[in-house]
Amino acid sequence: MRKLKNEELNRKSIDEFKASEKLPLYIVLDNIRSLNNIGSVFRSSDAFLVKKVFLCGITATPPHKDIQKTALGATDAVDWAYENSVIDLIERLQEEGVLVLAIEQAEGARSLLDFIPEKNKTYAVVLGNEVLGVQQTVVDRADDVLEIPQEGTKHSLNIAVATGVVLWDFYQKFKQQ
Amino acid sequence: MRKLKNEELNRKSIDEFKASEKLPLYIVLDNIRSLNNIGSVFRSSDAFLVKKVFLCGITATPPHKDIQKTALGATDAVDWAYENSVIDLIERLQEEGVLVLAIEQAEGARSLLDFIPEKNKTYAVVLGNEVLGVQQTVVDRADDVLEIPQEGTKHSLNIAVATGVVLWDFYQKFKQQ
Repeated sequence: MRKLKNEELNRKSIDEFKASEKLPLYIVLDNIRSLNNIGSVFRSSDAFLVKKVFLCGITATPPHKDIQKTALGATDAVDWAYENSVIDLIERLQEEGVLVLAIEQAEGARSLLDFIPEKNKTYAVVLGNEVLGVQQTVVDRADDVLEIPQEGTKHSLNIAVATGVVLWDFYQKFKQQ
Repeated sequence: MRKLKNEELNRKSIDEFKASEKLPLYIVLDNIRSLNNIGSVFRSSDAFLVKKVFLCGITATPPHKDIQKTALGATDAVDWAYENSVIDLIERLQEEGVLVLAIEQAEGARSLLDFIPEKNKTYAVVLGNEVLGVQQTVVDRADDVLEIPQEGTKHSLNIAVATGVVLWDFYQKFKQQ
């Protein structure tokens, strides 16, 4: 098979991206320290048509050269906003009918394997700090907790990879609806 | 829900990991430039019980402090080997009955959405350079080409994220068998 050239990939222009129907999914990054990770989440959010990325707490915002290094311009396409208080944001989203899911390892958390998104619902997934994870107060306030099953020796995936896994999982489940 | 402490996650020891049944999946990293990406792939391979990681061409090998920064010790658990020639490796794997899949955008590539791994088959997925992708010679030699559908403005996902997406996809599809 012949590899496709970049110009054959039929990628959207920024205007086409802005106008296109999105996945009913918000990404909430809370207290993410790594600029590489933030940029990489933007790039994945571009690929899978995320509705909006919320950057909370200490999470840095574009424009920033170290976000740009991994986002490669995806911050121009993907809608985003900074919110100081993740709890205020969660409460506002919930008032709008959005289901807020913390991505975390918690007692009684639901495995991502078993999770099926409901039709006509909008979701927000919250990913937390590289070391500390999603804050307990956020876990308490969320509508549910989703856990990525992990069977190895380590405690958690890289945050950009975890976001990619959750995004792909939602994307392919929505496509099956 | 109460967040779990690290010691409650019941992660495997390195010996338990080595002895455990793996996913019938090899990861082949060909000409990967970023040490962060390599480390991150090890961490994901640990989480989803990958059989072995092959590092080819210019891909750096552990021990290296910049791989360790993102692998966080996963290089001690996950089996790996360096192979100078990715083509020699592919041919050897194919002789052993392994199905080799290039992860690339190519004419007539199969969407990851539609791919169902066969029972009792072992697979190897090849991921290529951050800028150049999988080499055309590798695409030519592979048994099939899988494409991660991407609907945004950018040409490709970050390589560690792409590997995570493919890994999760295989993992959850194998679990459904």
